[in-house]
Amino acid sequence: MVHHATLPRNETGIETVLGVLKQRFGERFQTGQAIREQHGHTTTWIENQPPDAVVFPASTQEVADIVAVCAEHRVPVIPYGTGTSLEGHVNAPAGGICVDVSQMDKVLEVNAGDLDCRVQPGVTREALNTHLRDMGLFFPIDPGANASLGGMASTRASGTNAVRYGTMKDNVLALEAVMADGTVIRTGKRARKSSAGYDLTRLMVGSEGTLGVITEITLKLQGIPEAMSSARCSFTSVDAACRTVMAVIQYGLPVARIELLDALVVKALNGYSKLDLPETPMLLLEFHGTEASVVEQAEIFGALAEEEGGEGYTATTSTEERNKLWKARHDAYWAMLQLRPGAKAIATDVCVPISRLADCVGAAQRKAEELDLMAPIVGHAGDGNFHVSLLIDMEDAQEVARAAGYVSWLNDVAIEMEGTCTGEHGIGQGKKPYLRKELGAAVDVMVSIKRALDPKGIMNPGKILG
Amino acid sequence: MVHHATLPRNETGIETVLGVLKQRFGERFQTGQAIREQHGHTTTWIENQPPDAVVFPASTQEVADIVAVCAEHRVPVIPYGTGTSLEGHVNAPAGGICVDVSQMDKVLEVNAGDLDCRVQPGVTREALNTHLRDMGLFFPIDPGANASLGGMASTRASGTNAVRYGTMKDNVLALEAVMADGTVIRTGKRARKSSAGYDLTRLMVGSEGTLGVITEITLKLQGIPEAMSSARCSFTSVDAACRTVMAVIQYGLPVARIELLDALVVKALNGYSKLDLPETPMLLLEFHGTEASVVEQAEIFGALAEEEGGEGYTATTSTEERNKLWKARHDAYWAMLQLRPGAKAIATDVCVPISRLADCVGAAQRKAEELDLMAPIVGHAGDGNFHVSLLIDMEDAQEVARAAGYVSWLNDVAIEMEGTCTGEHGIGQGKKPYLRKELGAAVDVMVSIKRALDPKGIMNPGKILG
Repeated sequence: MVHHATLPRNETGIETVLGVLKQRFGERFQTGQAIREQHGHTTTWIENQPPDAVVFPASTQEVADIVAVCAEHRVPVIPYGTGTSLEGHVNAPAGGICVDVSQMDKVLEVNAGDLDCRVQPGVTREALNTHLRDMGLFFPIDPGANASLGGMASTRASGTNAVRYGTMKDNVLALEAVMADGTVIRTGKRARKSSAGYDLTRLMVGSEGTLGVITEITLKLQGIPEAMSSARCSFTSVDAACRTVMAVIQYGLPVARIELLDALVVKALNGYSKLDLPETPMLLLEFHGTEASVVEQAEIFGALAEEEGGEGYTATTSTEERNKLWKARHDAYWAMLQLRPGAKAIATDVCVPISRLADCVGAAQRKAEELDLMAPIVGHAGDGNFHVSLLIDMEDAQEVARAAGYVSWLNDVAIEMEGTCTGEHGIGQGKKPYLRKELGAAVDVMVSIKRALDPKGIMNPGKILG
Repeated sequence: MVHHATLPRNETGIETVLGVLKQRFGERFQTGQAIREQHGHTTTWIENQPPDAVVFPASTQEVADIVAVCAEHRVPVIPYGTGTSLEGHVNAPAGGICVDVSQMDKVLEVNAGDLDCRVQPGVTREALNTHLRDMGLFFPIDPGANASLGGMASTRASGTNAVRYGTMKDNVLALEAVMADGTVIRTGKRARKSSAGYDLTRLMVGSEGTLGVITEITLKLQGIPEAMSSARCSFTSVDAACRTVMAVIQYGLPVARIELLDALVVKALNGYSKLDLPETPMLLLEFHGTEASVVEQAEIFGALAEEEGGEGYTATTSTEERNKLWKARHDAYWAMLQLRPGAKAIATDVCVPISRLADCVGAAQRKAEELDLMAPIVGHAGDGNFHVSLLIDMEDAQEVARAAGYVSWLNDVAIEMEGTCTGEHGIGQGKKPYLRKELGAAVDVMVSIKRALDPKGIMNPGKILG
């Protein structure tokens, strides 16, 4: 496991707050060890640091009351959605109160005519899309996990559709948040654009619960496209696949998804999802548009792929085949684990300019080989974002050390290539050492903002900064 | 004129800084009255408040040195691009130093493969597009005026293309800025997305020089589309035109531009640009895409417009005709002034959810009639953003008062309709009273950020806040 330092605990304050909240929330206040551990970090090799209690508010006012009492007694507040974050975001290194928003799971309004909706933070992306389906609308951001929209906003999540529809930064119109002193703010109205003052919406998106607790989100929606088709194409090398992606982006082809899978991942999918794909690097695509434009996009892609030696290109508008392929892609995490039963998967998350993608993926592959690490790669290639999932035997200390070295090396390489150590997972505890390498003195500005908006340092301490 | 209060002047500090900068910058330091007045607000009815001096830095380091000396002596710093802002952004109510970045006009790099570039803040959008043309690239944000990219970033500008390409918020990948203590920060790298900490890029975009001086901007670029066509369609009422826009947006038609012109504006264009358009409300459109998709988009639009009684619909791929129409649209400001020679045009800038656009425009027309104001309307209708340009005889105090009442009324109406008092012009001095009406307690959070990042209050004082 990777250990992150515990921070000083305010025992007196915590004891007082536990008493107050227990009285106020009754059954919706829990201190059992199992539930506390479930609400610490559980998804990667980062060590679990459970909170002292978990509380389940049902309204903005209840969140405000919780934060106010925590502020009064200087006790940490850790917002929690579904716990699917990957960098220790929900750990409680100084103890404190986990605010689990899963009971705040209402879709509050859908304005179909304006292509927007307002939701509570505990609504998951799948629940939202189920709610919207009959209206001919969907919410495009898909990070893989069925994450909560509050959590997705907090980590500035994105995923497979971002190449066309952007990230959470681009799809949150406005939000409501409880700030560190218990004040409730709303960062915007429903206009599609505004120049009214500082962009607090974008400041809160990606702030990982360190500035406040998001209690409502106004989201942009999309009409379900008239037509969708999916396609796949195999390549003799990752390099050729990446060059094809570059060509697609430079052409301006509005692909909805363009995912890179290396040969190892394809092999894993074949085994796990009973497919018989050629076990070479592959691009998996989805096109959205009118009937005619979907056909045209698929044709243009085919021509671009052919120039890079793409093979076995097939495009289909069959919903069944499309779902089968994308179900397999979504299951890639589980499929990869089968490559090495008993291993733990450690996900990296670098993102580089598209012109450097082939270089960066190539270097990542060579380094894994050099360090004798099993390292399947999937990528949201259209964004230049890819994940090396190291399959590690956590009992083997030397291997764990090599994996840690690899993660560090890869982050440094991406930063050197004018990229970022995190395309979509966030900083949390795990990436803190790289933030300053990437952004230098800008981190001091972040610290100033953090101190100004959370002077007592109670909002999700030990994440992003400090 | 509209007077905004002067703020206390730090005479001793100003005198000292004038001496230091004069010695350092020689000819690039100016204190003549004419040049100072040119660098105060000149574009609308807001009174001119000139700075004490204008300095023309040529590098980030020079900007940092200017800010550092101003910080040491607590003297205001007012960043200046081309002076085309509309809400008093460049006024100097407490005096101080205008930092005119017009000599920082280099395109520093273009990464064609990544569809991005890095520019100094004094590069204008037209200069950038001239630079890019031979590479098959363009920068889509077009606020009308040939503004500087630093200024456009500072006001979160948008304009006619925003319905498809977004605003400056969506098209700035990263930026470099000199903060209030003279520190230089860079807010991001060149990756298309990142989850690395607080989104300082979006915090600086739209901050109107109140947090720092933008000294470099990394921008997203677009490939020049394979095909473009333009179209126009007349309607019997503004309401029918707005309903057509709603249908277009709800359909998801990826129009590049969809502009609303009311009958009065069309009449003005006929006079000024020697056209013979039917003098009824009109939509003016542009489609970007492949040859086939441009034809398809035009057809779909035609069908949607027909349902709302659209008449005289013509679409053309002729570059000459397209340029003629859009040149006329760009000249709308001058054309409108001809409707009432001698009058001053006062631009409003509300933006509402698209479902409220017809209501809001209709109410705006009725109110103008009621107050006997000449009030032509143009709108970036696809965003729900429109500008009523009041044509006012500034010598008629009663008319000026009615106009002031109208502006205030319209801002309130837009906010009530879940919209904003400014879609793209920014708050500056002119809209300060409406910011709190629109965003309530969120304004206190802005104040906290301002105090944290500019504790001496030297960065463009009296704008947005305070």
